[in-house]
Amino acid sequence: MKPSSMKSWAEVAPRLVAVAAGRQAADLVIRNGIWVNVQSRELLPNNDIAIAEGRIAYVGPDGSHCIGPETQVIDAAGRHMLPGLCDAHMHIESGMLTPAEFARAVIPHGTTSMFTDPHEIANVLGLEGVRLMHDEALLQPLNIFTQMPSCAPSAPGLETTGFEITPDDVAEAMNWPGIVGLGEMMNFPAVVNGDVKMLAEIAATQNAGKTVGGHYASPDLGPAFHAYAAGGPADDHEGTQETDAIARVRQGMRAMLRLGSAWYDIESQITAVTEKGLDPRNFIICTDDCHSGTLVNEGHMNRAVRHAIECGCDPLVALQMATINTANHFGLEREIGSIAPGRRADIILSSDLRALPIETVIARGQVVAEGGRITVDCPHLDWPDHARKTVHLGKTLAAEDFEIAAPAGANSVRVKVIGVVENQAPTKALSADLPVIDGRIEAEGEVCQIALVERHRASGAVSNAFVQGFGYRGRMAMASTVAHDSHHMIVVGTSREDMALAANRLGEVGGGVVLFADGVEQALVELPIAGLMSDDHAETVAAKAEALGAAMEAAGCRLNNAYMQHSLLALVVIPELRISDKGLVDVTRFEVTDLIEKVLQ
Amino acid sequence: MKPSSMKSWAEVAPRLVAVAAGRQAADLVIRNGIWVNVQSRELLPNNDIAIAEGRIAYVGPDGSHCIGPETQVIDAAGRHMLPGLCDAHMHIESGMLTPAEFARAVIPHGTTSMFTDPHEIANVLGLEGVRLMHDEALLQPLNIFTQMPSCAPSAPGLETTGFEITPDDVAEAMNWPGIVGLGEMMNFPAVVNGDVKMLAEIAATQNAGKTVGGHYASPDLGPAFHAYAAGGPADDHEGTQETDAIARVRQGMRAMLRLGSAWYDIESQITAVTEKGLDPRNFIICTDDCHSGTLVNEGHMNRAVRHAIECGCDPLVALQMATINTANHFGLEREIGSIAPGRRADIILSSDLRALPIETVIARGQVVAEGGRITVDCPHLDWPDHARKTVHLGKTLAAEDFEIAAPAGANSVRVKVIGVVENQAPTKALSADLPVIDGRIEAEGEVCQIALVERHRASGAVSNAFVQGFGYRGRMAMASTVAHDSHHMIVVGTSREDMALAANRLGEVGGGVVLFADGVEQALVELPIAGLMSDDHAETVAAKAEALGAAMEAAGCRLNNAYMQHSLLALVVIPELRISDKGLVDVTRFEVTDLIEKVLQ
Repeated sequence: MKPSSMKSWAEVAPRLVAVAAGRQAADLVIRNGIWVNVQSRELLPNNDIAIAEGRIAYVGPDGSHCIGPETQVIDAAGRHMLPGLCDAHMHIESGMLTPAEFARAVIPHGTTSMFTDPHEIANVLGLEGVRLMHDEALLQPLNIFTQMPSCAPSAPGLETTGFEITPDDVAEAMNWPGIVGLGEMMNFPAVVNGDVKMLAEIAATQNAGKTVGGHYASPDLGPAFHAYAAGGPADDHEGTQETDAIARVRQGMRAMLRLGSAWYDIESQITAVTEKGLDPRNFIICTDDCHSGTLVNEGHMNRAVRHAIECGCDPLVALQMATINTANHFGLEREIGSIAPGRRADIILSSDLRALPIETVIARGQVVAEGGRITVDCPHLDWPDHARKTVHLGKTLAAEDFEIAAPAGANSVRVKVIGVVENQAPTKALSADLPVIDGRIEAEGEVCQIALVERHRASGAVSNAFVQGFGYRGRMAMASTVAHDSHHMIVVGTSREDMALAANRLGEVGGGVVLFADGVEQALVELPIAGLMSDDHAETVAAKAEALGAAMEAAGCRLNNAYMQHSLLALVVIPELRISDKGLVDVTRFEVTDLIEKVLQ
Repeated sequence: MKPSSMKSWAEVAPRLVAVAAGRQAADLVIRNGIWVNVQSRELLPNNDIAIAEGRIAYVGPDGSHCIGPETQVIDAAGRHMLPGLCDAHMHIESGMLTPAEFARAVIPHGTTSMFTDPHEIANVLGLEGVRLMHDEALLQPLNIFTQMPSCAPSAPGLETTGFEITPDDVAEAMNWPGIVGLGEMMNFPAVVNGDVKMLAEIAATQNAGKTVGGHYASPDLGPAFHAYAAGGPADDHEGTQETDAIARVRQGMRAMLRLGSAWYDIESQITAVTEKGLDPRNFIICTDDCHSGTLVNEGHMNRAVRHAIECGCDPLVALQMATINTANHFGLEREIGSIAPGRRADIILSSDLRALPIETVIARGQVVAEGGRITVDCPHLDWPDHARKTVHLGKTLAAEDFEIAAPAGANSVRVKVIGVVENQAPTKALSADLPVIDGRIEAEGEVCQIALVERHRASGAVSNAFVQGFGYRGRMAMASTVAHDSHHMIVVGTSREDMALAANRLGEVGGGVVLFADGVEQALVELPIAGLMSDDHAETVAAKAEALGAAMEAAGCRLNNAYMQHSLLALVVIPELRISDKGLVDVTRFEVTDLIEKVLQ
């Protein structure tokens, strides 16, 4: 679980001992800071930290005996020295950035460790995709631990992914150096029902002595919840209420409290600690999903910790939830998450523990950011060509591919319509009466077309259906190859010509998000890696995403977070109505369903 | 890290899930108890626990759906259901009992997990001895995890053990199923000095992902202490003051607070939590050393937890220190230390959380004790013959073997004398002027003779010296093959004839402790296994040990804990003067020293 550039504690112990004893000089000494001790939960002024080989050799009241002529000395000048922040569960792909560019974006915010589940790329490129993410992660100057994705496809039988993840894949990945456990076991109904495949993935992880991530997205805390806990997941970030957090901790699971770009689950749950007085050791803060814009404009784990403090949590307790609690959960407390001998020297200097300005960031003993600016390289993997060419349409799409044929002789039909609800992940199963013109059903009014374009196997297949709620006007189309969770291509539009243009454009650039109006491209976010990520800087991607949002608005869309709604319309695990490569899916009954309800005349 | 009789969580997960979901019946359900939740630190009345395959399947407000016609049901009747107690560091040999008999003695006190360092037998039988202890441990109905002894000999160069422990031995043992880490690294000066062998043992343990036990027995909290922490030990039970405990926790080590038969280190250190308000998660309770008499008359971990509560610790916090904190420290929190799904069903029923009566004990889902009486077998290993015949004297000893020759022509000499200090482990380096009769130095007054009889290699060698402080009168001798840490035989006496008789008697019975007076055996504790342990019941051994104490008193000894003082006189790591097979040892200068200071006339 270590990058090649990082020697283990055991390997460097002779040096650390010699430095602490004063027989050898440290590489770096930080002097005169307030030691934020997350082990004892104390603030200890006037302390020094001596670092050698990227690890902490000494921390105590006087590190002068560790300083030699070559030792770099940093004066903390009475500021806080706190452990680098750990994000306990997150998806790098949500930032639309590669691991390198994500790292580059979050290091200045003080994040020095991330536990990342490359679930999205697993759907596109399978185990190889996970390995590529894992390999780029290990190149970075901060610690990125990989959770092996557990559920590809998320909804077996209702969608076709690029690749599937098997228990054998999980067992194999457990031997990779950067794998820390199993990614969120989101197929919770399968675990509750004793599904052999899901339990085999959990068993492979437990047998490797690693941590099983949980995902129990249901308010039911009865026997089904208990059965899920008995299956082995060791944490859960899907709680939204105080009772959820309390129930998880009581069952011996860690409650992960989430503040992502669109998740706000800390305020409602942290009262378990701040008001109910539960032992905070089993509460952990994570982000789950952050957009590049959030990273550029608001922060990352520093934003989440600050928010927890604003919600009434003691700053030291909140910091424990983002450092030692996380490290302990993953069996890494002797490696990260605190300022103590032997640990990786991941340290933030900050002049205020509540406002939490991130002034200097040190990772593995190296200054990696100063005053919000990164000071190191975040190396890119040489992504193989086929990982950059994952949009396989099989043909040039034409407007005809998006035509929806009516039953012979019909003039008007009642169809099912996916109803988008603002700020909610679930959709509504609606219906609309639409006219038939020249044998084709035509959307009108609030209703527009949606298509799922198969892009993994170049089958040329297109599933067509209807959606409403975006508010689009005029002739337009928007397409995205970020299309949770199987990541085909979702195209929404009022014009079949624009739909074809948008789809073909993404085929051309290798994926991303694009909006056309009146046959003209209005905005484009290229995501060439797996159709999910850019290897451009976060600032660039965030600017393009912002331009895309403006184009959506110009096309009439008034929904908050409309792009997210778009990209979730194929998520066939969340009710009520979705689209997949199999057709329209009724996610209350978990079955493919007919588009046409009845012929009206 | 599991006995053959215990299936892993992964193996039984399908059953646990089915029981929790109500599809299958549990083996045992405990109803209507107060769930002592050490994860959330709450008392939760009116809860049920369902158990299957020795593990917890369900714990929650209503386990009726887990009950089938074959399910055993226990009514907790509103009593507390608390996790079985864990002893985080201890030596089974200190009880003079085999693992089986130690288990039999402590199970009724609610101990269900022990982390044991078979350091004593390692000195006598080397790696094989450790393996025998480990193997008998795995036969028991409770959890005994073995810490691989790190320091045999304790003082290289100053004593000869039966066998030595090498870094290769440590690396090999890390693959055994019951090994949880490295036993206390007591050669702390070596670690501080960067000793290659000791750091190699630590590295072998860290590389195996296991826990390095510490032992820093010095009040110096300066650079030497920091260097020790940088070397890798993850805990320490040698602290005696509040400052010791605080210093260890701040350095990322677990502070183990000790209440053994002769150790009273909880009261002085627990104030770090109760008064200074440190986060209690890194504080752990252990016993280190318990005599059989303590186990029979006072208890074990229940005694220690009760004492912590009496010292002002919140009962729930004290229980965490003896359950989940310990489990977490050893990376076993998903296996033991709490009442939560998947964990081994180790549960105590108790009607009072302060007085802590141990009414029913369940280990791995089986009722193992009721009302202080054990209800299961604790199987004995078939100890090999050579493990029962470890007292190799090489000859029948005679009074002449204990003669101390004076320099030719001397009539009176000044000799060094080991001064025993009541209730203290360190001795004093004293001197005395003694007469020479027929060329032999003769002890007189308070001074009597001490001999270290080599017993591992049948060399027939005897080191002779003088000791004072026991108060023996008349003609007597006491011998013991428990002789820390190399466990030769220590004979103390006023009469060389009785010394020979005592030594030969132990040779005859395969080791133990014996007292002769006027040529007649007064008391004998047979310890045939490695000369350290009996496979008799604790009650029997305790009665014999009590008789021995009475015999010591009858011989004039008034020291408190006199037998312990006797057995520690060869402990050549604690100042000031000791005896070993190399001769008299000055433990302030770590060298063998001359017995005779000068010839007076």
